Amino acid sequence: MTSQLPETSSTISMNLANSVLAGERLALARLLSQIEAESPAGKQALGELFSYTGSAYLIGVTGPPGTGKSTLVNRLAQYYRDPTTGEEPSKVAIVAVDPSSPFTGGAILGDRVRMRDLAGDPGVFIRSMASRGSLGGLAHATGSIVQVFDAAGFEIILIETMGAGQAEVDIARMAHTTIVVEAPGFGDDIQAIKAGILEIADILVINKADRSGVESTERALNMMLQLAHPTPREFHHHGRVEIVAAPVPHNGEEAAWIPPIHKTIATEGSGIPELAAAIAHHRAFLVETGAKEHRDRDRLQAELDSLLQDNLVTRWRATISGNKYQQALDLILQRKLSPHQAVDTLLDGGYTP
Amino acid sequence: MTSQLPETSSTISMNLANSVLAGERLALARLLSQIEAESPAGKQALGELFSYTGSAYLIGVTGPPGTGKSTLVNRLAQYYRDPTTGEEPSKVAIVAVDPSSPFTGGAILGDRVRMRDLAGDPGVFIRSMASRGSLGGLAHATGSIVQVFDAAGFEIILIETMGAGQAEVDIARMAHTTIVVEAPGFGDDIQAIKAGILEIADILVINKADRSGVESTERALNMMLQLAHPTPREFHHHGRVEIVAAPVPHNGEEAAWIPPIHKTIATEGSGIPELAAAIAHHRAFLVETGAKEHRDRDRLQAELDSLLQDNLVTRWRATISGNKYQQALDLILQRKLSPHQAVDTLLDGGYTP
Repeated sequence: MTSQLPETSSTISMNLANSVLAGERLALARLLSQIEAESPAGKQALGELFSYTGSAYLIGVTGPPGTGKSTLVNRLAQYYRDPTTGEEPSKVAIVAVDPSSPFTGGAILGDRVRMRDLAGDPGVFIRSMASRGSLGGLAHATGSIVQVFDAAGFEIILIETMGAGQAEVDIARMAHTTIVVEAPGFGDDIQAIKAGILEIADILVINKADRSGVESTERALNMMLQLAHPTPREFHHHGRVEIVAAPVPHNGEEAAWIPPIHKTIATEGSGIPELAAAIAHHRAFLVETGAKEHRDRDRLQAELDSLLQDNLVTRWRATISGNKYQQALDLILQRKLSPHQAVDTLLDGGYTP
Repeated sequence: MTSQLPETSSTISMNLANSVLAGERLALARLLSQIEAESPAGKQALGELFSYTGSAYLIGVTGPPGTGKSTLVNRLAQYYRDPTTGEEPSKVAIVAVDPSSPFTGGAILGDRVRMRDLAGDPGVFIRSMASRGSLGGLAHATGSIVQVFDAAGFEIILIETMGAGQAEVDIARMAHTTIVVEAPGFGDDIQAIKAGILEIADILVINKADRSGVESTERALNMMLQLAHPTPREFHHHGRVEIVAAPVPHNGEEAAWIPPIHKTIATEGSGIPELAAAIAHHRAFLVETGAKEHRDRDRLQAELDSLLQDNLVTRWRATISGNKYQQALDLILQRKLSPHQAVDTLLDGGYTP
């Protein structure tokens, strides 16, 4: 009898969720599209799948354009799929996020290039996402898509983001291990990039390590790292080295982790097993110190906070007449009210300077 | 008698605002610091200054690291200060925003380098801002700092951002004219950057135009531009060119503006007068078509919306017991409630699946 009932958003989502759990690739692709489109069925299926999440290991890969991140991510995926490495091959999902591109063109092209390397492997699933205006929306969608892959049994999820701005940083921070990729020969602004990068990098990679300038890039990264993470070897005092405990960073959680620097040539696959070993090392570190749990908690709390924020604005908008909002905006445009004063007026119903 | 009154936040802000309006550089520097620190006096002074804003012309400059944006911005500032160009020299402010750097170190270094070129000119004021965690906070602060410069009588405000992620894009969008800077010889990801860039660029600059590869960069940019803005010359039909009206882009506002491509060598100053002419041309276009007014309106509305959002969250947080929020978060961590379901619980006081 159930088959004769009309399909509601709820029955669709139940079917989708079950098919995704059963490992059906087409259902997975369909659900990912529904989540990107923010459909009610997608949202509901996500709720049904949520209790199956929590097993995947998330690896963020970010860095400036032109450093070969995509190739590196492909190589890592191939490594995790390789039965000859001595480990059980993992199911691997790649989420390629490009916040700088409001078009899907580039992302689709990226998928095609990737498909050549990883084509036909049912243990790999690749999803590209391009920004559609709102950065918050993109981070939401990325978080949801990672949850779907997690529930669908993908053990390794590689989240690749373009660039190293705050946007990319926020998305890369969803990961357990964040890899920041550099390449030799970047220009004048490299100091500034590196300063920001130390905050988020668990592992630094100098890709294209066959290019000239690799030594100076490594030297610069090492110098920045030592400034950020002073270790005993750096404390020189009156001509002799003193053994001094490294100061505990403000995020005490990860006091003992100093990001290693790895050199790779992703196009040739060299340095990939070593990089995978560094990831495994960091993963063990996170588990042993309890930091993995902290990161999971932080990620889910950030998701909760961001959803709360969106909902509060939507609900408030529904309570206020469009007219009142428009009047406040007009007063701002006439420079009779500053934006701060307008907020006071709208939320308190009055402004007295 | 007033001099014997204790200094309140209100009297401080009044003094600051008046001193800034009187053109005192030290007061200006002090107010900018207070705004960055989000002090109540800074907020109040901003409210007092807001009615004096609206005269400045805002020029955004963004692009990937290593393209020489800072040097280009310096050269533009020098150009606008130059009494020999035939125009009245403008007062110029530079706001250098680095969302990727949570440290001020790089920004301060940047100021020093700049100071050499523009030192001692009372008609130039440079302010560097580095991210302190929250991107939204940085965009807010940038908007406020631009308003202070505007009220203080700076006719030209150059807003320079690093990179081309959504973060930088959002900040660059505050400007009337947005310049996107490229350089020859970037790597594999250049297609993806350019796709995002077309959305926001009013003027494209290929800096370091003395480097090899400039022709292929120009060809690629031209191709992307023609895809985005089809013009009559591209419509070929059965071997002959047909004159077809270019389709109106979705943001009808600026239907007729096709971003020009300019080549510069900022280190030598070449191409700068031509770039300044292109900016003047775009400015005239914006004024004539009414698009300048639209952009001002959009900017102030975005600021209002973002302030409303922050305030709504702060106010809601104050109404709910920390315990209830914590319980919902715990249920999420135990995978008993999805983040979406938790929001329903917190805002509606209940969740029924």
